[in-house]
Formats: sequence, C-alpha cells, structure tokens
Amino acid sequence: MSSATNSNSEKRGSLENLVIELTKDARRASLEVAVLSTEKKNAILLSLAELLEKNRGALITENKKDIEDGKKSGLSKALLDRLKFTPERIDAMIDGVKNVAELPDPVGEEIESTVRPNGLDIRKIRVPIGVIGIIYESRPNVTIDCAILCLKSGNAAILRGGKEAYYSNIILSNIIQQSLVANDVSVAAVQLIPTTDRAALNILLKQNENVHCIIPRGGENLIRFVAEHARMPVIKHYKGICNLYIDKAADFDLAEKITINAKCQRPGVCNAIENLFVHRDVADDLLPQIANSLVDNDVEIRADQATAKILNENKISYKNASEEDYYEEYLDLILSIKIVDSLEKAIDAINNYGSAHSDAIITKDENAARKFMSGVDTSTVYWNASTRFTDGFEFGLGAEIGISTDRIHARGPMGLRELCTYKYFVFGNGQIK
Amino acid sequence: MSSATNSNSEKRGSLENLVIELTKDARRASLEVAVLSTEKKNAILLSLAELLEKNRGALITENKKDIEDGKKSGLSKALLDRLKFTPERIDAMIDGVKNVAELPDPVGEEIESTVRPNGLDIRKIRVPIGVIGIIYESRPNVTIDCAILCLKSGNAAILRGGKEAYYSNIILSNIIQQSLVANDVSVAAVQLIPTTDRAALNILLKQNENVHCIIPRGGENLIRFVAEHARMPVIKHYKGICNLYIDKAADFDLAEKITINAKCQRPGVCNAIENLFVHRDVADDLLPQIANSLVDNDVEIRADQATAKILNENKISYKNASEEDYYEEYLDLILSIKIVDSLEKAIDAINNYGSAHSDAIITKDENAARKFMSGVDTSTVYWNASTRFTDGFEFGLGAEIGISTDRIHARGPMGLRELCTYKYFVFGNGQIK
Repeated sequence: MSSATNSNSEKRGSLENLVIELTKDARRASLEVAVLSTEKKNAILLSLAELLEKNRGALITENKKDIEDGKKSGLSKALLDRLKFTPERIDAMIDGVKNVAELPDPVGEEIESTVRPNGLDIRKIRVPIGVIGIIYESRPNVTIDCAILCLKSGNAAILRGGKEAYYSNIILSNIIQQSLVANDVSVAAVQLIPTTDRAALNILLKQNENVHCIIPRGGENLIRFVAEHARMPVIKHYKGICNLYIDKAADFDLAEKITINAKCQRPGVCNAIENLFVHRDVADDLLPQIANSLVDNDVEIRADQATAKILNENKISYKNASEEDYYEEYLDLILSIKIVDSLEKAIDAINNYGSAHSDAIITKDENAARKFMSGVDTSTVYWNASTRFTDGFEFGLGAEIGISTDRIHARGPMGLRELCTYKYFVFGNGQIK
Repeated sequence: MSSATNSNSEKRGSLENLVIELTKDARRASLEVAVLSTEKKNAILLSLAELLEKNRGALITENKKDIEDGKKSGLSKALLDRLKFTPERIDAMIDGVKNVAELPDPVGEEIESTVRPNGLDIRKIRVPIGVIGIIYESRPNVTIDCAILCLKSGNAAILRGGKEAYYSNIILSNIIQQSLVANDVSVAAVQLIPTTDRAALNILLKQNENVHCIIPRGGENLIRFVAEHARMPVIKHYKGICNLYIDKAADFDLAEKITINAKCQRPGVCNAIENLFVHRDVADDLLPQIANSLVDNDVEIRADQATAKILNENKISYKNASEEDYYEEYLDLILSIKIVDSLEKAIDAINNYGSAHSDAIITKDENAARKFMSGVDTSTVYWNASTRFTDGFEFGLGAEIGISTDRIHARGPMGLRELCTYKYFVFGNGQIK
C-alpha cells in the first residue's frame, strides 16, 4: 500500500469517527433537551439573541470571507446577495429568535386521550422526535432558523450547511453553542458538521441509530442525493410545481385576480403557480382577459395548441408549450397554460404534473370545488384563493422550517408541532392482561 | 456475451419492468381508492368476507402445498404451525374482515381547523397516504390483514410475502382482487408481488416516485435490509426489548403481579418484558419475593452481580447476565435483572438497552412516575400497569397493522388513522397576497 493511499484511508477513517461521535453526542444531548422546561428553552433563545447582538461585528467579518471566496469562485450575483449579512438581515435573525421564544411550547401537548374499560388512562402526548439532521445550501440564516426551531421543539440538531457559507455557519454555530453553555445545556444539542466534504454527508446519512430524521432543504440534486442515500426517514422539501384550475363555473374577475397574484406577486418562491388549466367551456371567453393581464404583467405564456388558437385569434403573444414545460418549476415570470375538457381532466393533469405542494380551483360551483379538493393529491388545496398562502406564518404556525412535499409524518408547512412525534403515557392502577 | 448471461439480463430486465409497472398501476389505483365512499369500501370488504367463505376448500388446498414444501425444506414445527390454515383460522380471518368493515372511516376526519384574520378557513383533514408497500414473512393471514386495513384507509397496497407462504398468498390475493372486481374497483388497489425473488424487493425499494411508504414486518435482518435499501420512508416494526423498573417507592405485591404478567402471560410477543431494573434501596427486601415467583413460573433469571448476591443469599437459582443479555429479545421465559442506584440510572439503562417499544415503572411516588414517563424515550410508557397492553385492540383502535418502534409519522400501535396523512383544505373568497 502506498503511503498516499494509507493517508487517504486514515483521513476517511478519522472523518467517519468524527461524524459518528458527533451523532452519538447528539443522541445523548437529545435526551437532555427533550425534558428541558419551556423557561429553560426560552432562556437559551434569549441568550442567543443577545449574543448575536454582541457579535454583529464578528458576524460581518466572517461573512465577508465567504463573500470573497464566493467572488473568487465565480458565484452569481444572486447567490452572493443571498449569502450576504447586512445589519438589517442580522436584525431579522435576532427578531426571529425572539419570536420563536414567544411561541407556545409544543412538547407535552395532549393530542388525544381515552380511558379504556379496564381503567387504563391512555394519553397521546406530543414529544420531540430526537435528533434531526438538516442539510441545506447557501443562505447562512438557515443555520439559526433550524437551530432555534429544533431547540424549542426539544430536539437536538445536526446541521450541515453549504460550502459557500462556511465561515458564516461556523461563527453562527459557535454563537449558538455559547448560548447553550451559558444555560448549562450540552453543546451537542446543536452541532454543525465542521466540514463541507461530501464524504461527511454520506457517513451522516448512514447513522440511523442516532439520527432519527433528515430534512434536506435545497436544490433538486441535493434532495435526490439525500433520499437515495439516507437510511433514516427523510422529509423532503421539494420543488413547488403549483397549479391553478379555472373551472367552467368560475367568476372571471376573481379568476384573473388570483391568476395574476399566484404567478406574479413573487414568482421566485415555491408556492407561486407554474401551470394554469382552463375548462374548455369558458376558454374562448376567459382566456383573452387572463392572457392580456398576464402579458401586461410581463409574463411569458407557454400555450398548448388549443390555447394558442385562442391567443392567435386575439393577437396575444405566447410561445408553444412542450410536454416537458408542464413539469417545470420556472420560479420566473413564465406560465404554462393548457385547456382541459373537464374537471376530472384537470384533476388528472395536476396529479400528473404537480409536485404535491399547492393547487387551487376557481369556481362558484361547490360540488366541483369539493370534488377537486378531494381528488387533487397535494399538501394544500385552495378554493377561490391564491396558492401563495402556503406558508407557516400564513397558516398561523408562528414559524416554519420549510414546506414538506412528502406525505409521511408532515405535509405542507412544518412548524414546531411538525418537529415533534408523540408518546403514549398510560396511567394504570395495577392492570395486568 | 454468452447466451446464458443474455438470458439472465433479460430476466432481470423483465422483472424490473414487472415491478415498475406494478407500482405505476398502484399509484393510479391509489387516486381511485382515495376518494371511494365509506359504503363502497365496506362493500368490498363484505364481498371479500363472502369470497373467503366460498373458497374455504381452495384455501386449504393451496395452503397444503406450502405446508408440503415447508416440510421438504425442513421448516421448524413452530413455523409450519404458523403457516397452517385451519377452519378456525379461516373463521378468524373472515371475522377480521367484517370487523374492519364496521370500524369508522378515518378518511375525511377533521384534525384541526383555523380561520385566519384574512378570512381563509384552513382545515387539516385526514387523507390516505397513497401507496403503501408491506414486506412480511411467513404467516399468510397478514396478506388479508394488511389488504383490508390499507383499503379501509383509502390506500393502495403492494404486498410482498415470504416464500414459505407462496401458494397461500397467491390465492388470498386472487380472492382480494375478485372482491375489487365485484365492486368495479381497479384490481391494482391490492397487488401481491408474484415472485419471492429478492431482486424484486430491491427494485420495489427504489420506486419512491410511486410508493410512498414501506412497512416491513418480520425479523431483524429483513427490517435492516429494507431500512438500508429503501428510498422511501420506512416505518419499522422492530423488536420489542421492553423494560420494567421497580422504583424504591413501589408496592411490592403490585410489582410482583405486574412483573409476572409482563414476563409470563405470553412470553413470545413483542410487548412482553425482557429486562427488569430494581432500585437498590428495595432490592434486598423485594428481589427474593419477585425472584421466587419468577422461578415458580419457570422463568430463567439472568442476574447482574448485585442481584446474584441477593439470590445466592436466598438460595434462588439464576445464571450470570452478560452485558449483551440486556440487549436481547428473548421471546422466551428468560428475564435479565439489574439493580440500579437511582431513578435516573433506570431511565438511562432503558434508553440504552430498550428498543423504544414499551416500558413501565412501578411506584407510589407520582413525581418519580412523571420523571420516568418523560425521560424514557419509548412509544408507550406505563405507570403501574403491565407492558402487555401495547396493542391496537387494547388501545381501542379496533385493529392494528403493527406496532411502530419508529418515531416518524407513527409510534406505537398503528391502526387505520396511522395509515393516513393529512391535507390542508383551504376555503377562500378571493384572498390574494
């Protein structure tokens, strides 16, 4: 064996040990944070808010290293902007921490209860999951968001950020650990994996004994990689291919208003629509109105043949849609339009093209609405409202760690409760079987 | 390429196609069964009960083929017994189907609701998961149990039984599909993978686009294999290393009664205890009473040094426990005993040795009980009752697909509700953001 191979395998061995020890420490810490009082958890958060305030200078200094490295490696202007700490963004981070301190503690809430004929009193109580791994990219404020939501819900967190935010994430995790130390809580309650080596991620994803759930937040490739390699459950926060269906019984002005809002108000977010389906019976009358409004709002229309015919007749500009376009998350001022023959065809189309995120129907017909809402297999289905409301804050959760496009454990906006599982507490007085 | 290789790779290719097509069919069928009325689902179940009744002879005939094969391949008497259909077991299967028809439909239940300041009416409604894959071993009645629970909860099921029950599973799945046909529902709603080739399982576990959840029921090796290879969430029904802790404030007679019940009433099941922890302060007085009673009930005691000292003094027989013994699921009349210095040490020991299934404390001290119940990380924790009650029927769920030792999505006994996820139905009147 050459000495180079030897040293590589030693390096791999020590990385493996590092990650495994880190997950064991997290597991131990999870048992400690699971039983912390609400007051104690809030005290950690308030310490954290203070420490962020005190370390403003250091945060900007460390963040500048990431910005410089990003410029050298040719990151896009948009990515550099997402990476950057400004005084306002540090303000927002501090406010976010204080806000989570004020939210109700989900741990200990009674979900259901029953007293059995034998007298056993069975209570289903919300408790933390345990150790949650969060894999994310670029934006360093995610480090704080995830840490505080995991802490408040009594979980230990293992964070693995992107290499672009390396220095920013290191200082943030140091500050978080200082706030744990200040409150006599194990620093292993929140740990950042101190390397962005892909091999470390691979090792982490195999630690199903000590890591109970992985939440990947990032691009499609990252999420696919995690789902493929993880041995523990993964709650995917996948892309948002959201759809709007305008039924034959739609109010035209309402349909126009919601289409424009759902597409244009903030096209770069996951709950903006990418596809519009219109019932054939109203297409001739309705589409020109909607399409003109879209064009006025700088939206590029991608039209199927039937839509194209109507747009041509009305001299409205468009491009021809390919079949692939309907599977596309544009995150931009582009909208694919298709005419459908029936409500059923609209449901089929959405179940085929959508990503089970958010979908809406515009109609005055309650039967059509109920059928649509039952038939569309998605996290959130709207009747006469914009898809843009799928969000933890809009849902009243007070915060969110993301929007699950999965269906196991949590679906749609995930707040503090969704970071919990439950445990049955059974009170007896000597019952035997 | 030799023609043998060629034909092997063709075989693999066609198996892959078969499994992939089967999962696509299941996905399509899942959208159909998700919106079936309760009446329709119950009609399918009642057809199934009738068809099982009509096919008693054929069931026995096909089952005999499995028994013959099992004898030839040297299956143990216990396994052959588990495999065998008797008239009574067919009765029980038919009763089980009728019983599930009578249970309330979980689909459509409102879990929570809120009206936001902007007027959006947000309802969290229980809906089916979609396609559930169930991987199980030997006992063929699992085929019926899983099919009916998935159907009643509006899910499509993909079943993969063990090779020992090959013929029995084929006829059962044929009968289930006849009951679907009789009610004009797609036969793809319940499909058995028609081969026990391990390669088929490997292919199934990669179909995360169309299979939303896998429930493995069986031995440790099967569960490990599934958790390692599945790309979709797995809800593990893992071994039961259940623990009983007798606190220093325990009532001795209650402690004895519950120890004997939890160990002896049916030692081969997952909710029977394997370990007993006793507080040092009461060990001298309490252990002889408990140990004598265990020996009277033919239980082999495996003792730590401190326990051994007391048993020696009282001339009670035992074996020395090794550290590994406390991790062991005996499923037999064997109990490992350890003396602990404190409540905290008992909690640590259970979190270390246990499998997060069912654990109990015997005490008259409410503070000790509350601390134990919060600190033990398990699906079900009992105060002054036997662990033997962890069971869907005992919990009032009316049925169970198993007992989850996982913490994501479902924990403890899984009934119809635990085979569901939720969807947000949002009712608006033109809200835009």
